[in-house]
Amino acid sequence: MSVQGFMFPRSRTGRASLLPPPPWHYSGHMLTLEYRTDLDAVAELLPSGLAPADEDPGAVAVIWADWQSCSDTFEELLDPVRAQYREVFVVIRCKYRGRHYSRCVYIWVDTDYAMVRGHYQGYPKKLGSIFLTRPVTVGRAGPRLSPGGRFGASLAANDRRLLHATFEIGAESEHAGFVNALPMLHHRWMPAIEGDGADSLDEMVTMSAYESEIGRCFSGDFDLRIGDSPVEELTRLQPREPIAGYWREVAMSWRSGTTLERNNLTGI
Amino acid sequence: MSVQGFMFPRSRTGRASLLPPPPWHYSGHMLTLEYRTDLDAVAELLPSGLAPADEDPGAVAVIWADWQSCSDTFEELLDPVRAQYREVFVVIRCKYRGRHYSRCVYIWVDTDYAMVRGHYQGYPKKLGSIFLTRPVTVGRAGPRLSPGGRFGASLAANDRRLLHATFEIGAESEHAGFVNALPMLHHRWMPAIEGDGADSLDEMVTMSAYESEIGRCFSGDFDLRIGDSPVEELTRLQPREPIAGYWREVAMSWRSGTTLERNNLTGI
Amino acid sequence: MSVQGFMFPRSRTGRASLLPPPPWHYSGHMLTLEYRTDLDAVAELLPSGLAPADEDPGAVAVIWADWQSCSDTFEELLDPVRAQYREVFVVIRCKYRGRHYSRCVYIWVDTDYAMVRGHYQGYPKKLGSIFLTRPVTVGRAGPRLSPGGRFGASLAANDRRLLHATFEIGAESEHAGFVNALPMLHHRWMPAIEGDGADSLDEMVTMSAYESEIGRCFSGDFDLRIGDSPVEELTRLQPREPIAGYWREVAMSWRSGTTLERNNLTGI
Amino acid sequence: MSVQGFMFPRSRTGRASLLPPPPWHYSGHMLTLEYRTDLDAVAELLPSGLAPADEDPGAVAVIWADWQSCSDTFEELLDPVRAQYREVFVVIRCKYRGRHYSRCVYIWVDTDYAMVRGHYQGYPKKLGSIFLTRPVTVGRAGPRLSPGGRFGASLAANDRRLLHATFEIGAESEHAGFVNALPMLHHRWMPAIEGDGADSLDEMVTMSAYESEIGRCFSGDFDLRIGDSPVEELTRLQPREPIAGYWREVAMSWRSGTTLERNNLTGI
Repeated sequence: MSVQGFMFPRSRTGRASLLPPPPWHYSGHMLTLEYRTDLDAVAELLPSGLAPADEDPGAVAVIWADWQSCSDTFEELLDPVRAQYREVFVVIRCKYRGRHYSRCVYIWVDTDYAMVRGHYQGYPKKLGSIFLTRPVTVGRAGPRLSPGGRFGASLAANDRRLLHATFEIGAESEHAGFVNALPMLHHRWMPAIEGDGADSLDEMVTMSAYESEIGRCFSGDFDLRIGDSPVEELTRLQPREPIAGYWREVAMSWRSGTTLERNNLTGI
Repeated sequence: MSVQGFMFPRSRTGRASLLPPPPWHYSGHMLTLEYRTDLDAVAELLPSGLAPADEDPGAVAVIWADWQSCSDTFEELLDPVRAQYREVFVVIRCKYRGRHYSRCVYIWVDTDYAMVRGHYQGYPKKLGSIFLTRPVTVGRAGPRLSPGGRFGASLAANDRRLLHATFEIGAESEHAGFVNALPMLHHRWMPAIEGDGADSLDEMVTMSAYESEIGRCFSGDFDLRIGDSPVEELTRLQPREPIAGYWREVAMSWRSGTTLERNNLTGI
Repeated sequence: MSVQGFMFPRSRTGRASLLPPPPWHYSGHMLTLEYRTDLDAVAELLPSGLAPADEDPGAVAVIWADWQSCSDTFEELLDPVRAQYREVFVVIRCKYRGRHYSRCVYIWVDTDYAMVRGHYQGYPKKLGSIFLTRPVTVGRAGPRLSPGGRFGASLAANDRRLLHATFEIGAESEHAGFVNALPMLHHRWMPAIEGDGADSLDEMVTMSAYESEIGRCFSGDFDLRIGDSPVEELTRLQPREPIAGYWREVAMSWRSGTTLERNNLTGI
Repeated sequence: MSVQGFMFPRSRTGRASLLPPPPWHYSGHMLTLEYRTDLDAVAELLPSGLAPADEDPGAVAVIWADWQSCSDTFEELLDPVRAQYREVFVVIRCKYRGRHYSRCVYIWVDTDYAMVRGHYQGYPKKLGSIFLTRPVTVGRAGPRLSPGGRFGASLAANDRRLLHATFEIGAESEHAGFVNALPMLHHRWMPAIEGDGADSLDEMVTMSAYESEIGRCFSGDFDLRIGDSPVEELTRLQPREPIAGYWREVAMSWRSGTTLERNNLTGI
């Protein structure tokens, strides 16, 4: 007899696992702000073996998402403390073995399961406090999903405001930008317990969602301010030239990815 | 020269006031669960001078709301940490001088400004952790606004779960119940600093929103569980007979109320 | 029969009251940073009828406190989610009818009961996120209570860092400064529900703790940085000249105060 | 050139890493409650290859800790939002290759860095809300470190109270129990991204702190209540027979561990 559970803690029944087994389903809305920064600031975030994108290599996307997510039992949706979370992430693009990928370099969420689900997928998640204006259908306390609708968005960690953005809908859009539109290329790293500089887990993985669904989608102008922190490097990614902002309703399901390289430690 | 500000702290410019001056605007969605409890449990919550309602006097509404709110400058909507909050409140009805009113007897919110705005209006607000499933338009991680859509809702305070509800949409509805549908009748109390049992502030006020707007509205069945706490009395309001549940989009603006009785201390 | 409870919500038994009846007992430690700012920045915080202090009128104290507090039943100490909280407050001095007083002009706490207890006492409390380094008796992860011991302290609200201080113990001290050492003079304000500019509750109160007890007490040098926010005015109180910092163990009990002036609205 | 950082996110300078490199230093106080539960409930938490302890195999320790921790730069101690956290953990013992070990089977913390530091060390950390009464030296709002001093402690996750304990000091003690007194034996697991049931990272590690230091230490009686949750299995570990409770000041430093078995996936 052994312990059960997709993720730790593993136990008799697996019920205590920090994550239920995939697939996982997500529905929410997303604000994507794309801009160009210094190419060096992008290139320095790529580990050996990855190259900047061929075209528009200094492009960055900063993305807010307000999610509900659940397992294939859907039980979390009736106990929404286990279903609702928000995240902010920073995406660049890279090239590996002749193919282009999207790559998340920084990300903050506000629940433990979303944090560790990210670590499983190679997203380098930290905790943060995240807010994103919601559109409304009645009354005056929120934007409508139409031109002129204005949104605010913020991120704080360690009690410091790291990001503050505003966005105004300009027009309907057929897409939500190009920086986060490719399959993801992530590393999954876990240093060896010996603390000698080696990584026990050192994998390069790629993944895509399945059954993605896009609802209403809009583009518009934005403003983005970046604040500093002793434990962040976001200020190296200052906007030099805005591309565009996008707001959209989005959903997807996720089941698994593919390991592209595996350099895990072996033996003891 | 004197200090400025609608609410404390009052300062040179009034900018630090915990509340901007009214009017205040609200947009959001609301889950209302109506049921009958023991009449005694309702009657015991009415101060002297108030009587239970003539009809259906044991009716109770437990209501979750997920809000954005803002002042008349609308600036909070671009800094949503200052605009978004959730609340749960318990409403009964009462009769005073021949008229019927709604009355909030317990309420929890999750921000300071909403808490003190409530105190100003006679809502006896405490802080709580509040969740309410959101409907979605794409994907699988949330209900659609149509028959069969299922929602969950919870309240915790002092790290104890006090309420947990589920609701399933049955049909469209023309209204969202009757318990919270009347003008509010609230007391505003502040004990004297002498701690001698007298109230410096002792007012009975009534108020209604203006420019209320109702969006989509549905009725359905629900289940409600009540948990205990050493500093709550919710378990005295156990459901004996469900009436109905309602989900709706709702907005309103609020400017002021009317004092019906004033027994404030005078002189020193 | 009427409803019971020291504070709202008032109910059948009073158990749900946001505050138990006084006396309240407090034990904790406190970091006090005293400095001089522009006299105008102090004077502009005084309502009509109060004058700046005769001596050193530009003196300010910024104070962090890490508390346990409880009612006279002491039951909260066995359910510490109801006993532990932190606060940061800004104190100046003023003169009224020939006597000098201390006066809290800004204050943040991190629990609802401490917030409303403050409102009862005339402290203009908001919610904030508050941290203060604790001294330790073993190991390397904290200062010892002896010369050279270094502390950090911070305050954030609305996801913005408003204050960040460091302090280093220089020597033992017989006192913890003079700005917060006088009886408090506070206003208790609650605007009328009519929103016409009048205050229903408008009292000037004074109060002191009883059974104060001071433990170990030290003085030293400090650094204080003030950050901005659209809903604060702390940056008007920039340090011009440091006086001294103090760390001390402190306890007190509090039962009641005295109303000095009462201008409450009367009649309806 | 490659990216830097002990833990993800890895970046140009390594400053953004969720963890600074070891060693890490810890100072705090700890409440340990030891009791016996059903042997089956302990045995079912042991993965294949581990056996229950030879003596007293049904012994469990539930432990609250209130920490400051920091890196070898000690800078976190001056920005205490990055240094203070609390945790609750459940420890059993096991036997592997003829040696006995302590093993943490469940654990909750309240910061991201402590959570991921735990994952690095094989602690299956989730987030929780954790409170533990602090002793005081002055006043009435807390226990003294002497016989009769009473403490409370609680844990909640997903807005449900999972643990609530009370403890009363009986006498000084030379030790703080035996369940958590051995070197730790942990698994480090990370499922493969293919979601096929295999673990990319599958290591058994052992570790001990260095430079441990114990301050004042007391034993006493306790009461422990366990609450349920749909995503926990703590109720399987109900106390059958109390052993003893312990409160102590404790500090340690931690640098590295040793891999005992490594079954990581290799190749792609």
